[in-house]
Amino acid sequence: MLSLLEAIRPTMSIRSTKLIDHLGLDLTIVSEAFQHTGSFKFRAAYNLASSVPNDELLTASSGNFGQALAYACKLLGKECTVVMPETSARVKIEAVRGFGAEVDLIDITKVGRSERVAQLADEMPDAYIASPYDDELVIDGNSTLGDEIADEEFDVAIVPVGGGGLISGIIRSFCRNGVKTDVFGAEPLLGNDAARSFRAGELIANDSEPKTIADGARTVSLGKLNWPIIKEGAADFIEVSDEKIAESVKLYFGLVNLKAEPTGALSLGAVLEDPERFRDKKACVIVSGGNVDADVYRRMI
Amino acid sequence: MLSLLEAIRPTMSIRSTKLIDHLGLDLTIVSEAFQHTGSFKFRAAYNLASSVPNDELLTASSGNFGQALAYACKLLGKECTVVMPETSARVKIEAVRGFGAEVDLIDITKVGRSERVAQLADEMPDAYIASPYDDELVIDGNSTLGDEIADEEFDVAIVPVGGGGLISGIIRSFCRNGVKTDVFGAEPLLGNDAARSFRAGELIANDSEPKTIADGARTVSLGKLNWPIIKEGAADFIEVSDEKIAESVKLYFGLVNLKAEPTGALSLGAVLEDPERFRDKKACVIVSGGNVDADVYRRMI
Repeated sequence: MLSLLEAIRPTMSIRSTKLIDHLGLDLTIVSEAFQHTGSFKFRAAYNLASSVPNDELLTASSGNFGQALAYACKLLGKECTVVMPETSARVKIEAVRGFGAEVDLIDITKVGRSERVAQLADEMPDAYIASPYDDELVIDGNSTLGDEIADEEFDVAIVPVGGGGLISGIIRSFCRNGVKTDVFGAEPLLGNDAARSFRAGELIANDSEPKTIADGARTVSLGKLNWPIIKEGAADFIEVSDEKIAESVKLYFGLVNLKAEPTGALSLGAVLEDPERFRDKKACVIVSGGNVDADVYRRMI
Repeated sequence: MLSLLEAIRPTMSIRSTKLIDHLGLDLTIVSEAFQHTGSFKFRAAYNLASSVPNDELLTASSGNFGQALAYACKLLGKECTVVMPETSARVKIEAVRGFGAEVDLIDITKVGRSERVAQLADEMPDAYIASPYDDELVIDGNSTLGDEIADEEFDVAIVPVGGGGLISGIIRSFCRNGVKTDVFGAEPLLGNDAARSFRAGELIANDSEPKTIADGARTVSLGKLNWPIIKEGAADFIEVSDEKIAESVKLYFGLVNLKAEPTGALSLGAVLEDPERFRDKKACVIVSGGNVDADVYRRMI
């Protein structure tokens, strides 16, 4: 069995002269688009699937965590079931199946995801129920990305935020490594529960799943385990409009040759929302993944 | 002044599980899409601009070599003039200007590129006339990519071919390093002068500039210096239809998260044209660059 550090692919740093000149800012892009299954989620998924004793894992995910967990389980010879809405993009369902996982399609107008997970958990008493973000093993897995950039002495790191799994992992790593980098969360304005929570000092949820184009950040709230880490360790949050997210995807395409997914582009979107905040700072812009449907991408570039 | 090896960015290798599973072939993608200015041409351009004593350089290029030479000259504090058709994509003209080069726009219905270069050379007697492929310094610069993959023990390497600068560089490197990898050229079917030359054993040119979507391979013939290296050292050529080029760009988008330009996708197109040829081979698929206009890309994905 491969260890976590053997299994993950090191992240990719890009210094894009064109982007740096265009914005007049000292940006280093750190991209997980070429991580296994196309997003940072593989770090979490592999750590989780390789750490728990269970031979079966169960999760609900229409996106990157489902693929990542399916692939991690394939590598580890474990069984994996992923609950997905039947309206999920065909390509995403096929990707999960392609990694050998069982896909459980649900009609979300009739049954909620967590309700269905609870049903399945009853049927599969030996399965581990894996949360895409709200799990110590997920946070620890994601912290490996922080470790990889810990020596770079960035003034700031800007991290896309949905459920808070990645940013809490990065903060945990920086604490562990004594890194002084300020960690900013970049969150869709349309689903700004983390920003509101951070300002209020208490965990606040959105009323419903936000309708942002950043589909990886359509979370109702931060995870319970992520929140205290974020509350203590984040420097601030920047809310990003869907327009700036789309503009960032386009800038990555045109100036960097990087295919970024909307959620992955949140961090550059945060820079576009408030460039002065990063003036004369050595900034790390984290791209969480590259998986985006062709139709969505076509409209953005 | 940075040495060549200090100035270039190491290439990026990707083992894409999705692509490998999709094709059932052992492919390693080696991509130059994140090289400075977005293509391998920077290797050639920097080697050339840093090796010649001239303080001015002159070239004709509507594409990647123009950008690469402009940026290399910027880094080296040299002057650069790039002759481009006035019909070139605005974004490409701006990119060359953005690197501080002088752009000389011509109406190609009235004056040929080489004719205009000759005119300008008369006006700039101290300028070095830089060919994008037909120059020993270009071949040597490109050979650094071969050096980077020399230890990988690939059975085959598949290389996009236009003027032959990259493939001759790779062959030169493999000879120098005693590497036994078979080097295949991947050329557009619509501009198959290199394949025809290789079969005939003599240098044959296209009648006119080929109309392939692989705009970096719209060359009339291989360079005179590239040809003998290719004739002696290439294993074979595979002609790639524009359909397979487009399919490759789409596969890179959908399965690899890699933004490849059509010319860069020629090598995967060669695999699609003749997959059995690469069955049970450890194959290196070289992506020469990632610069492609949004309109063209939108149609392909």
